[in-house]
Amino acid sequence: MHVDVGNALSEAATPGVPRDALDRLDDRVADAHRRISEGMDAGEFGYAALNLPETVDAGEIRAAVEPFADADTVLTVGIGGSALGAAALCDALGDDTRTEFLDNVDPAGVRDLLDGIDLSTTVMHVVSRSGTTAETLANFLVVRDAMQDAGVDWTERTFVTTGPDGNLRDLADAHDLPALSVPDGVPGRFSALSTVGLPVAALAGVDIEGVVAGAREERDSLTGSLFDCPAYAYGALAYALDSRGAGVNAVMPYSEGLETFAEWFAQLWAESLGKDGLGQTPVRALGATDQHSQLQLYRAGPRDKMVSLVTLRDRPDVPIPSSDLDGLDYLDGASLGSLLDAEFRATEASLAESGCPSVRVELDALDPESVGGLLYGMEAACVLAGELYGVETFTQPAVEWGKTAARGLLRGDESLPETPSLRVE
Amino acid sequence: MHVDVGNALSEAATPGVPRDALDRLDDRVADAHRRISEGMDAGEFGYAALNLPETVDAGEIRAAVEPFADADTVLTVGIGGSALGAAALCDALGDDTRTEFLDNVDPAGVRDLLDGIDLSTTVMHVVSRSGTTAETLANFLVVRDAMQDAGVDWTERTFVTTGPDGNLRDLADAHDLPALSVPDGVPGRFSALSTVGLPVAALAGVDIEGVVAGAREERDSLTGSLFDCPAYAYGALAYALDSRGAGVNAVMPYSEGLETFAEWFAQLWAESLGKDGLGQTPVRALGATDQHSQLQLYRAGPRDKMVSLVTLRDRPDVPIPSSDLDGLDYLDGASLGSLLDAEFRATEASLAESGCPSVRVELDALDPESVGGLLYGMEAACVLAGELYGVETFTQPAVEWGKTAARGLLRGDESLPETPSLRVE
Repeated sequence: MHVDVGNALSEAATPGVPRDALDRLDDRVADAHRRISEGMDAGEFGYAALNLPETVDAGEIRAAVEPFADADTVLTVGIGGSALGAAALCDALGDDTRTEFLDNVDPAGVRDLLDGIDLSTTVMHVVSRSGTTAETLANFLVVRDAMQDAGVDWTERTFVTTGPDGNLRDLADAHDLPALSVPDGVPGRFSALSTVGLPVAALAGVDIEGVVAGAREERDSLTGSLFDCPAYAYGALAYALDSRGAGVNAVMPYSEGLETFAEWFAQLWAESLGKDGLGQTPVRALGATDQHSQLQLYRAGPRDKMVSLVTLRDRPDVPIPSSDLDGLDYLDGASLGSLLDAEFRATEASLAESGCPSVRVELDALDPESVGGLLYGMEAACVLAGELYGVETFTQPAVEWGKTAARGLLRGDESLPETPSLRVE
Repeated sequence: MHVDVGNALSEAATPGVPRDALDRLDDRVADAHRRISEGMDAGEFGYAALNLPETVDAGEIRAAVEPFADADTVLTVGIGGSALGAAALCDALGDDTRTEFLDNVDPAGVRDLLDGIDLSTTVMHVVSRSGTTAETLANFLVVRDAMQDAGVDWTERTFVTTGPDGNLRDLADAHDLPALSVPDGVPGRFSALSTVGLPVAALAGVDIEGVVAGAREERDSLTGSLFDCPAYAYGALAYALDSRGAGVNAVMPYSEGLETFAEWFAQLWAESLGKDGLGQTPVRALGATDQHSQLQLYRAGPRDKMVSLVTLRDRPDVPIPSSDLDGLDYLDGASLGSLLDAEFRATEASLAESGCPSVRVELDALDPESVGGLLYGMEAACVLAGELYGVETFTQPAVEWGKTAARGLLRGDESLPETPSLRVE
């Protein structure tokens, strides 16, 4: 990926980062890079994710999914990091294979999905690191039951990715299901480029070897200076802008194929950095659509935002047919791509004109190498930002309280803490 | 809709609103309600939107779409407020009719969409208040061309909603297309319950009369006190929390059918209130999925957020099949609905436990009356908040700069203002 942080400088934006402050920050980036490199070398928990371009075995993944190559629909049962990486890859790079993600336990949504697919030509990928995630196992049980009701042998249509223990591993052993192992030391939200995110992408026609190659190239660009490394430039500027008041990070790709990438990014950023009272709030947007929704706020609202504009240097295009409609002379000879690019440039300039900081992230094209590089680059940016904030990037302790409480409620333990009520009916 | 603001009180959360401050704020709500009522009575621009439950003619809309009742696919060509209201209604309440929204000019997305639908059984609804929106007209020209290429008479498969002038009105007149008029005085983002949002909903099987009836009931609940009016309670608490530091408003429905509602809300809130350096940043989330993505940040990150939890008192359910899986005793006898409800209650309690303010918005069910009430209620909440902030709720002046610049770029005028560049490749 290519990054331009010019519009995040204090000469362009408020908040903005002075050039000399960037020079000083670069010393901290060098220190952080040493820490990250040590973690990678030792395969430490979390840091090990940045080794995936070397450690992932695409051939093993291809072999595991090969029996399901004829599936019309690929159904992932998983939640959070167990679903978002595959979804981001499939939406950016997938072919016409139908991919569905059961990443919620909404009964209406699950019923509609099951009513709308042919289970006999569906393959189910069940993903849970612990093998015990409540939502995932509940959905698995519902789909398994539906397959049995439809006369489909679920053991022939299911494969799993999980850890060494837990229900999913036991199921795989008992029923001889193809089973991939979650990689050691890789938290769910950093697992897109592994046995978690790549199998379904492979079934959806994605060149996963190209994705990994792009990630490897991005890894090779990790150096001790933000001025030489796009991933670190992004992470360092996000941190520096947040420190100066940009608590909101609006990620706005100008490519519909990257809409799910923004959702993946939101999990990565929120769950990794949102701790100890710190962390930017990621906001998902989409160019050009959200120019008609969020841009008013970005330009004229509080000065608490940075906008991460993601765009493509090259894209397949569609010409706009000429017409004799009044006042549309500016569309003569234009294409949807040139219109979208013009809107991108105009939006970037309009943010600068209003003093709202933005960072430009450019991909060569929506191709496997670039998307692999983007995912890897944002993971590295996040790890760097975690070092700069000084937080525990790879844990998510604040979600445990609610998980325990939900299990208690289902067991009939109604002892939630009392909270005030002020009802308006 | 039903609202509980107990967990937004200062006794529960930080930031939070003291009860006596709410009493004082209620005097301002009374004043604002008088202003709103005057605007409604006079049919003033913007305020007129709150009269839609009385002024919209569902019969006229039914008559306009009746010729297209057999369409397999309903394609809306429109952007921003011209698309989001219909999308929110269809996703919450629609039947199996395929609804698609061309609300962007991404060439890959447009091409994929056109490759995937049968244009001979598609009806196109082109929506633009001005009749001159660049993205909408460009997409219309592309679809019209594709229909002609496919041997489909586009004049038989197209209807429009637009204003009294402009290209779309001219086209409708020239080709005798069914044409609905945008209602007077209703900005796009407040037009869901009108000729903009309801026609496609009607084609998707939505009981639009029920939607309007639900909106009318909500309108009848508008009184001069936040303690008696759910819509005003929501708007007043959002304003009061923002004033105390909750600049982010995360809208988290526990219903997949309301995922697009959150997107609609994000436009309503951002474009109406994001001005003069004011306005909350709306963030779209989804329960229970985003418990595995955003909840860590909400509980442990900066104290700059409120969470708007939207849930259903009743929903169709799916039982979870019993199993002998270890450690899942808490799922015995549970259903996906009871699991989702438990996660909702646990998340609400976990936010309170961490001191993060939340507001609960409950619907009786995902039915036309409740969804109509929700959309109307949030519009009224937004208008009230605009009065409390003292902003021009119904305009969006900050987006004009970019529109002008984009047109200039397409005309070959490259004179965007110079901005700094700092590239990292």
